[in-house]
Parts: sequence; C-alpha cells; structure tokens
Amino acid sequence: MKYNPLHQLMNPESIAIVGAGNNPMKMGTMQALSILKDGYGGKFLPVHRKDKTVLGHTAYASVLDLPETPDLAMLVVPTDQVIPLLEEFGKIGTKHAVIISAGFRETGPEGELLEERLKETAGKFGIRFLGPNCIGLLNSQLSLNMTVFSHTAPPGILGMASQSGTYVTQTFPYLKSRGIHFSKAISVGNEADIDIVDVLEYLGEDEETRAIALYIEGISDGRRFIETAQKITPYKPVIAQYVGGSTAGARAGASHTGSMAGPDYLYDGAFKQAGIIRVHSVEELYSHGWALATLPPLKGGRVGVVTNSGGPGTAIAHTCDVYGLEVPAFSEELQQQIKTHIPAVASSANPVDLTFFLNSRVLSSLIPELIIESGEVDCLIIHGAMSSGMMKEVYPHVREALGNIALDDLLATFKQDISTAASMPGKNDFPVVISSFFGREDSFTAAYQDQNIPVFDSPEKAARGMASLLRHKEIRERGKITHLPLPVKSTEAEKIISQALQKGQKALDEYSAKKIMALYRIPVTSEKIANSADEAVETALLLGLPVAVKACSPQIMHKTERGLVHLNLKQTDEVRQAFNSIKETAGEGTPVIVSEMVKGDREFTAGMTRFPGFGPAVLFGLGGVFTEALKDVTFRIAPLGLTEAQEMAFDIRAKKLLCEFRGMPAADISAIGEILQALGTIALLHPQVAEIDINPIIIRGNMPVVVDALVVIE
Amino acid sequence: MKYNPLHQLMNPESIAIVGAGNNPMKMGTMQALSILKDGYGGKFLPVHRKDKTVLGHTAYASVLDLPETPDLAMLVVPTDQVIPLLEEFGKIGTKHAVIISAGFRETGPEGELLEERLKETAGKFGIRFLGPNCIGLLNSQLSLNMTVFSHTAPPGILGMASQSGTYVTQTFPYLKSRGIHFSKAISVGNEADIDIVDVLEYLGEDEETRAIALYIEGISDGRRFIETAQKITPYKPVIAQYVGGSTAGARAGASHTGSMAGPDYLYDGAFKQAGIIRVHSVEELYSHGWALATLPPLKGGRVGVVTNSGGPGTAIAHTCDVYGLEVPAFSEELQQQIKTHIPAVASSANPVDLTFFLNSRVLSSLIPELIIESGEVDCLIIHGAMSSGMMKEVYPHVREALGNIALDDLLATFKQDISTAASMPGKNDFPVVISSFFGREDSFTAAYQDQNIPVFDSPEKAARGMASLLRHKEIRERGKITHLPLPVKSTEAEKIISQALQKGQKALDEYSAKKIMALYRIPVTSEKIANSADEAVETALLLGLPVAVKACSPQIMHKTERGLVHLNLKQTDEVRQAFNSIKETAGEGTPVIVSEMVKGDREFTAGMTRFPGFGPAVLFGLGGVFTEALKDVTFRIAPLGLTEAQEMAFDIRAKKLLCEFRGMPAADISAIGEILQALGTIALLHPQVAEIDINPIIIRGNMPVVVDALVVIE
Repeated sequence: MKYNPLHQLMNPESIAIVGAGNNPMKMGTMQALSILKDGYGGKFLPVHRKDKTVLGHTAYASVLDLPETPDLAMLVVPTDQVIPLLEEFGKIGTKHAVIISAGFRETGPEGELLEERLKETAGKFGIRFLGPNCIGLLNSQLSLNMTVFSHTAPPGILGMASQSGTYVTQTFPYLKSRGIHFSKAISVGNEADIDIVDVLEYLGEDEETRAIALYIEGISDGRRFIETAQKITPYKPVIAQYVGGSTAGARAGASHTGSMAGPDYLYDGAFKQAGIIRVHSVEELYSHGWALATLPPLKGGRVGVVTNSGGPGTAIAHTCDVYGLEVPAFSEELQQQIKTHIPAVASSANPVDLTFFLNSRVLSSLIPELIIESGEVDCLIIHGAMSSGMMKEVYPHVREALGNIALDDLLATFKQDISTAASMPGKNDFPVVISSFFGREDSFTAAYQDQNIPVFDSPEKAARGMASLLRHKEIRERGKITHLPLPVKSTEAEKIISQALQKGQKALDEYSAKKIMALYRIPVTSEKIANSADEAVETALLLGLPVAVKACSPQIMHKTERGLVHLNLKQTDEVRQAFNSIKETAGEGTPVIVSEMVKGDREFTAGMTRFPGFGPAVLFGLGGVFTEALKDVTFRIAPLGLTEAQEMAFDIRAKKLLCEFRGMPAADISAIGEILQALGTIALLHPQVAEIDINPIIIRGNMPVVVDALVVIE
Repeated sequence: MKYNPLHQLMNPESIAIVGAGNNPMKMGTMQALSILKDGYGGKFLPVHRKDKTVLGHTAYASVLDLPETPDLAMLVVPTDQVIPLLEEFGKIGTKHAVIISAGFRETGPEGELLEERLKETAGKFGIRFLGPNCIGLLNSQLSLNMTVFSHTAPPGILGMASQSGTYVTQTFPYLKSRGIHFSKAISVGNEADIDIVDVLEYLGEDEETRAIALYIEGISDGRRFIETAQKITPYKPVIAQYVGGSTAGARAGASHTGSMAGPDYLYDGAFKQAGIIRVHSVEELYSHGWALATLPPLKGGRVGVVTNSGGPGTAIAHTCDVYGLEVPAFSEELQQQIKTHIPAVASSANPVDLTFFLNSRVLSSLIPELIIESGEVDCLIIHGAMSSGMMKEVYPHVREALGNIALDDLLATFKQDISTAASMPGKNDFPVVISSFFGREDSFTAAYQDQNIPVFDSPEKAARGMASLLRHKEIRERGKITHLPLPVKSTEAEKIISQALQKGQKALDEYSAKKIMALYRIPVTSEKIANSADEAVETALLLGLPVAVKACSPQIMHKTERGLVHLNLKQTDEVRQAFNSIKETAGEGTPVIVSEMVKGDREFTAGMTRFPGFGPAVLFGLGGVFTEALKDVTFRIAPLGLTEAQEMAFDIRAKKLLCEFRGMPAADISAIGEILQALGTIALLHPQVAEIDINPIIIRGNMPVVVDALVVIE
C-alpha cells in the first residue's frame, strides 16, 4: 500500500481517549464502548482525572501519565480543554488525533480564533487531526469504530467521507438493514487540518475501497478537490451529494461545521469536471455508491428487465428510458427460449413479465441466465424474487387449509435453493440489481444482500441506481484529463490592464477588452477606433460594409438604450451619421469604434467569475437576449483541459445549436473549447481581471467570433 | 352518500367466487382466503364443479345452483370459461363482477376480440365489472380484501386506483411497515368496463378517502379524465404516476394491460390541467399520497426544521429550497426562546440543530410547539426523534456497564412519554412530517405512524413530501376551472377548409391559414394577395414599409431556403423585385402575399395536434429557431378555459420572456391565452383540421401577432 498521511491515523495500534468515563450514556463513553466492543484489537488507553479504571481498563490521571505514546489521541472534552490536552499529547510524541469536541469555527468569530490556535498547536508538534466537531471514524477492516453507534456489520467496500457525523454513525442501523457496508467511514467535522479532499485522496488509494461516497456542505479548496478526484474517477467511482447551494442550505451548513458553501451551479460544474457522479439524496448516495462499489463496470447501456409483475416492470423500463438506459425488445430467438419457461399469458419481450408466478428459480436465475448468455443486454434488473417475506404474509390465511402447519414448516416446504439463485449474478460476473418490496425479512432479499448484490426497495430506484453505473461508464471512457502548462503571460495585456487601473477604471473599454481576448488567441470582431467621421468611413470600407459603429468607453452604461450603438450600417452616409451622432450624444472625447458586422443566427455567452475557495470559474451558455430568460449556462473551474472545455460546451440544454442545425454547419467545437480555455488562462495569469462577460459569441459559418465583451478589473 | 355506480360493487353483501378450491397455494383460493380471513362480514358463496365444500364453506356445483343471487361475482378461471360464466351470472341477476382471469386484449388481436365479446355479454345483462386481468379490490372499511396478499392493516384514508395489480396487493406488507393505509384500493386491469376514471370519480365522492393515488400506464378517454379530476382536485388531492410515456414504458404497458399510452409531455400537461400532482416513483405515489391524505392543508410555504443532526437538517433545508419551499431564519425573539432549551453549541436558527442530544421531548414537542406558536412558519419537518431503535443498537455496548441490565429494562428506563410527543402534531392541527432513519422497530416511528403522522425514511424525502402539499395549495387556490360554451362555427372557415380538401390539398396556404385564425379572433399580420408587381407595391404602401413578400402556396416546401421569402423590404423597388423574383422562381401561377413586418424580439410558437384518446391538444412554447433546439413547449387538452390557457403560457422554462424584460413590457397574457383557447376551438369545431403549427407568434409591444401558420387538413 502506497503511503498516505491518513494511513496511520486510520490504522492506529494504540488509542488514548480523554472524555470517556463510566457513565455509558455520555458521548465519550459511548465512543469508548464502540472501540472496546466492536472488535478493535489495538491498545485502549483511557485518561481520566478521577477514576482509576474506565470501562474495566486501567485509566491514567493525565496524558503525561500514559505508560506509552499512543498512536492516536481521541478528545471528547469541553471546548476549553482541547488545546491544552493536544499540547500534552504533542509533548509525549503522539502524531494523530481525532477531536470530537465542538465549539470552534461553527460558533462564530471567537470560535474561529480558537480553531486557529488549535491548528497552531497541532502544527507545532506535527500532529495531523480529524475535527474538531466530528464524530470520529470507522475502519471496518480493523473493526475499529470510534463513533457513538455500535457497528456490527461485516467489513464492506464502500468508502465514505462526510461533512456530517450523522451519516457515518446514526445511519449504521439503516445501512445494515439495507445490506450496505463501509470499508472506511470518516467524519471530517470542521476540517481544521484534514479535510474531505485529504480523505478522498486516501480512499482513492485504499485497496479495500471500491467506490467512494461524499457528503458535502462546502469545499474550501475547489481546485485541489477537482484535481484529486480526476486522478481517482477514471478507475474508481466517486459519488457525491452537495447541499450547500441554496440560501437555506448554506445557512444551515455554516452553523453546522462553519463550511463555506458556493452556488449549486458551481458545484454541479465542478462535479462534472471531476468525473464525480452527483446525487440529490443521502439514500441515493448510499445505495448508488453501493451499486458502484459492488457491481462489475457496465459495458453498455442496454438493460434486461425480468419481473413477476407488470407495474414494476413498466416502471423500471420507463425510468431506464428517462435516465438514458435502453430497454431493447429481445430477439425472436431469445423470446422463444424464454417462452418455454413462463405462463402463456406472460410477456417474453423486454421486460419479461412472468405475471404472478411462484417459481422463484425461473425468475431469479433461469431466465436471467438465458438473457445473459444471449449477449443482448449489458445488465439486468430483477424485480419480484421473494420467499419467506411473502410466506409470512399469507401464513395466517393458509395455516388452517394446510392442516395447521407451523410457520417454520411452511417456510421449509417452500424453501428454494435461494443462496444458489442469489449467487447467479456473481457467478456470471454481470451487473445485476434487484428491486424488491421486501427487506431482510425476506430470505431472498437477505441472500442477495449477503452476497453483495444491491437490493433497492422499489423499481424506479433500481433503474436509477443502474443509471449511475452508466454515468460511471461515461466517466471511465473520457480517460485521463490532461492540462497543458499555462502559456506565457502577455506583457501587452498586462500593460493594458495596469494602465486602466492607474486611470481608476473599474472595467476596460470594449476595444481594450477585445484586444486582450485577441492577445490570448480568442477570435474577436475586426475593428478600429475612429478619430473622425472620415476615418470611420475609411475603416468601414476597409472592413467591408455593413459595419457597426459604437461608443467605446468603460464609463458609459446602457449604450444601446442611449442610442450609442448603431448596427448593420450598409452605406457610408449611415456610418458618418452614426459617428457624428455618438460624438454629439456622448461628448467629443468619447472614442468611437468601427467594427465589422458578424452574421450568424446562433449566439452564445461565455465568461469568467471568481468564487471563494474555487478561484476563477469559466462560464458558457446560450447567448443573446435568452441568456437572462433561460439561464442555460454551465460552469467549470480554471484551468481547463481541452476535453473539459469541450464537455462544457455540450453541457447546455441548447447543445443542439452546436450541431448541424437548420442548414447551418456544426460549430467548431475545438474553437469554442479554446475560447473557454483562454478565458481560464487570462484569469489565472491576470489576477487583476475580476470578471469577464462575453455576450454574444456569434457562430459565423462554423467559427465562433466574440462580438462584445466586458472585462471588470480591480 | 351520493350514489355512484361503483358503490355497490365496492360494498357487496354477498360474493360468489368461481376458481377457488382447497389448494391454498392457488391464486383463486388465496383470494378466497383473503375474503374469509381478513374480516369481511358478508356472505361467501363458492362455486366448485367437484368439491362439496371450499375452505369449509358449502360449495355449489354451478352458478345456476347458487341458493341466492350474489351481489358480486368473482372469476378466477381459465380465459375460455369467463364469458360462459358471466352469462350464467347474468341470468341469475348478478349485476357486478370482478374478473381476475387474464388472456384478453393484453395478448393481441384474438384477445381483443374476446374482450369485445366479454363486454357484449356484460352489456346484455347490465353487469358492471372490474378487469379482466386485474387482482381485485380492497375496501378496508368493510375489511373486504379480494387480493392474493393478506391485509391486516387498519382502515386508512388514502384511496388508490391502479393499472397494476401489484400496487394494490404485493405492496401490502411494504405499506404496513411504512404506516400507510388504504381506504379503498382498486386494480382496474384491462378496463374493459370500469376504467380508472370511473374509479377516480368514485374515490372523489368517497367520504373515507381523503386523497387519491393513481398508477397509470395509459388513459383511454383523456378528456373525461381531466374533467373528472378537475371536479375533485380543488378540494381533495389527487396524485399520479405515469410510466407509459417512453418507448420502453409504452411497450411494457401494452403487453401488461393492453393500455394505450401517449407521450410523456401530453400526460404532463394533462395532469397540470387536471390539478393532479405528478410524481415519478411508486414510493412517492404512496408516501406523498399519504402525507396529502393525513395532513391539514398548507397555508403557506414557510417550513420550520428541527433536528438532532446537522447533515439531515442541512439536506432538508436545501431540498425545501430546491422544491419551492422557504426555510426562513427565525426571529431573534423565537431564537432566544429556543436557546433556553438546547446545548450551547447547538443552532437556534432555522434549522434548529440540537446536535447529538438525547432528550426526545425537547426535539419532538417542546421546540416544535414554540415554533408553531410563533406563527413564523406554516409547517414543520422533524428529524431525529428516536428511542427504542437506538437503544437496541447501543444495548450490546452498554449492557455490561449498566450492570448487565436486560434490554427491556433498559428500554423502560429510557422510555419517554412517546405517545404524547407523537400526538403533538395532531393536537396543534399543524402540518408536520417526520424524517427518521429508523422504521417501526423504533417506538417513536411506530407511535407517529399509529397516529397518522407521515414518517419518511430520509431527510430529502420528507422535504419533497412537504413540497407536494405546497403543490396542492397552488391547485386549491386556482379554484374551479370553468369553460365557456364553444363559439358558433364559422361557415367561412368551414368553406375555406372544404374547398381546399376538394382541391386535394393536404394543407392550407399561409394566407388561408391565417384567414382562419383571424375568423376565430386570433391576431395575425395584415396582408394581402398581390396579383401584380404594381399591386404588391400598392399593398406595401398601404400597410406601410417595411413589408415581407412571400410565395403563398401549400405545395411549396422550404420557402426560405428557395429564396421565396423576402423580409424587411424598406423600399418599393425591393418589393417589386421580390414579387418578380418569386414569380420567376416558383412559376407565374404561384400567388404572392404582401405582409406587414412585425417588430419584436420575443418569439413564441403555438399549435394543435390530435392524440388518440385525448383528441386535440394545444401547444405553446418558445418560438423561432429555438423551438427545435430547446424543446421548451407545453401541452394542454382542448377545450381550454382562460385559467388553463394562462397557466399554460407560464408553464414554459422561458416564462420570463412573458414578463417585463430588458425594457420590453410584459406580454398581454390574456391575449396569448385567447389564442391558445381559439386553437382548441378551431380543432373542436373543424375536425378536418388535423394539425396547426404557428411559428412565430411575435410579441409586438405587449400584444401577440401570428406571423406564420401552417394548417394541415384531412
């Protein structure tokens, strides 16, 4: 195993705990009990000021009294004791800590200061720590559970990093009943030292972890988050829920762990860029994460559906379709094979609907294997395999008619070779998910779960779970994301910007803005400043009529409304008139720009904005008057590789406009990608550029041309 | 109770069953057992050719041997016996039947014929029946369960009509474990006689049913469906899932019950028009249906959130925001009151986050009541109330430390007055939903469920459930939908259409199309046919320059591409040139139209298409080149009341374009609504009009003007 700074913290050979006592209903004690009772094999060293023993183990009066240096210190103490205790652990040489105590940055300015001091103390001794304000960690391979809930489930293969402690402790029973098991689960709390990105990196390297789930309220270093994820996602699926992107969500998150949230669209773009599958509920985070961890990768998007029931079959087929999976009708040949095993009124097309039919073997293995062998689909969804769950339901009805049989005898009578049936998916190394209205009270559901076959509790969920596997296929196929080194900074661009700043400007004039674009190889309209009406006419003739004549000053707002923009001038007279009219309206000193008219029916917008934690983000979207009305825009974080930039262009609802459309050729997607990359480059090379707003980019023929641009500087 | 034809079928005093025997693992027998064992108090009359008794009851050798006329006949027999048996029941005077047997229209053309004969037989005797190919019905008030699964849950208040039998039988255990209880549940099968609309109407009148859930694969009479629903939805919530709108879903549905599906967008529009809340999974159908049935109506959209845990609180707040609910920060005053009851590090803003805190009373009643009293929110979501569920989890850890206490004693020690806490929502007549990761194994969850408080198994689901209540508030507030009688048919329009049909035209020319629009008071461009270049110029001057000059013939396709459309002609010379050029290109005989140019930056599309089962549907959407690329369109079924037409206009993503926008005034929404109404009128009065496609409607100032229209006739 590759060395990762978290490896030691996750695999301590000894743990000292401060804050555990002998009252089992107190949090620290509950956490100590989890360590002691759930199978951890390392040393347990409680520190207690008064009690000589804690939970039957020798306790030490202070950290300095410990008989050895523990690998890991765990603090569940009042806020004001955290720093002094960490100092003591530092002195005895402990290098890792888990700080459960709350009361730091999540409580406001004073707490922030305290958290800074905590970081200084840890830094002084080279201590790496989780928290504060976290619930601890679970390493199921070590049977090490430091949380408040007991963890009795077997070791799993889904890794979890969470900015909420609840999701790695209070949900243990929920997960166990659904057959979902963690490899490692880590509550990051306030992330004063180790943050969720560190944990992501660790889980990416952890061999027991086959997929990673992230619960996120806010990311403090967006760029590192994306880069870390991009290294993992081409081979190991990463799935995330983000809840900080709304007003209420951001406020709740801030008071929860003091996290800094950003707009939903920013995270949405960052996830796509990072190759992270996004879900919108914790249920999907767990259940799709589990499907991604347990199933072999999808090779294609064709789904076979086998059910005992028309409704769920139809719902699965419909949901597959909505989420981009295909449910193809089976070949006549395959249907003939299937027909020999099912009732006459049943349907052999896809979905196969056995109708109400009690032979579970046909449903759960015989027909699925026929379908798998046919090669006609890439995965299977099975609904309706049931045994003891149903029998327990009908038992009160049939008991008497069956000679007052005992329930256990009834179950035995109808016992199928369920474990064989449930092992079918694994035997064929084929992606199969199960939909069942029964939980573990049914022997089929339990057998599937025990063999790591994902079971969803309703049909649509099974289909959506499979769709997450399709998303991962797309992510795998885009391969490694590469970035070229940034180009050299343009000194001419730098000069334009600093001169404007020196003049006190808040924004560049249109001419200078486009000049900067051009210096970074963004195609812009040909244009020139005209100092007289004659010069305007001269330029117009040089560019070729028709032209546009516009006032060019960073101070003038609402140019169009004030009549300072004259478009589509076809005659030299009109050019002259426009020039004079602008000078009259806006003043003799206002520069006038003469610009070629760009013809094209497709208009887009692009731009750049900076976000705390993420730095410059590039925007692309539908342009013209529709930008505001349709809000069809997408974001990515700079710098952008070419793949990322092109994916971005196609990530708008109006993406059809980029393809061949109503007699117009497909837009040159590389050229658009290069514009988006260049916007990122400008932002990274020129920190004085606060914001760029290009609207429109017109597609002339197949090539994009920037027609108007605003560059805000500071 | 008002008389409804289904009332008798749902409340039989005696039931004869054919197809039940003494083998309890056969379907008919299982259904007979459900009748006998689940508490039905009426007479049970089995018909069996050989056995003298069935399940301990006297059996009769044939229908004609029955000692009395049963209220209801139930048939669970091979397909070919259905019609002869129904005939016999007809002869003895039975007026209601439930036909479980399959093998009719869902199997293809032969089955369709058989189903026709079945209908004839029933018609001959005036028998109303459910099925064939259904699973029966449940009337929980009578304890009458005719399905294959046992039903031991108490009578409920959610009515269910389903085109899948599974959803009113195989999900009984699923529903019981989630505390969701049906008033009536009806499987409609192939709907040869009684269809889902009849059941909807019945449940609308049924006093025990407080909300109605519909599982739909296809509706055969869309207009009646909408009208029936519109009478119910202003006071009783109706919620529906539709799965027939995709290729795979439609194919699956057809082989399931032979239902005729339509495109998803058609049903989406029909649901909105009908005031039906749409959901996309059976889980939401049940759980939102239950919340709608049990909770008092929402008075506003402000939500209070109380949790023991930051993650779920943040997720609830975020999800509320996404679904249109508001989570406002509480006033300082209310926060001060809350703070006195919670730990210092906990948050008193909204969400209130108690952090890990074991006092359930504070979480589940004390703080909620403070919030309810404040009047600052309209509903509450509570997450984290738990008791025995958690205790059972931690018991293995704490047992020893608590002197080897027995689990029951531990539970007793920590027993809270849960039933009082759980009765809080009802006591305050205030909408409250619960989120809990524990099911009924936790005493809190069970107590809530037993008091009809909806419990969702994860935070986001609770928020989405509440959002369905908000949808119902909007539906209630739109009030009764009224329709004016259709206007008188225009004989002039009729003449234009029949003349075109006589000439063998497949479509009207543009001039005639707009003429028809104008006859139904749709505002169109002023225009005239010009018979010579001089006339064209004359018309142009009359209309005022600039004008458009276009070829006007139903035969010519791709007019723009062929240079037969000349726009924005500013000078008489240009008009003359355009006229001559069209005659040259398209032939002397081609009529030429001279039309005013309509100025306006906002373009919409509207139209009409006919759908099997639904008749004419009206379309509205974003127009111009974007129609195809953005597919931002919405449908409604004709005729449209003004409310429906105006709701429709605002049901597009680009609805902002209809409001004040970039210096343009708000579009006249009544005028747009009248166009949409008129399109429905034309379709209903002129069945020869197969299709109408208007694109664009330009907003001139604030008024819509139809600029181009295609009318397809047949």
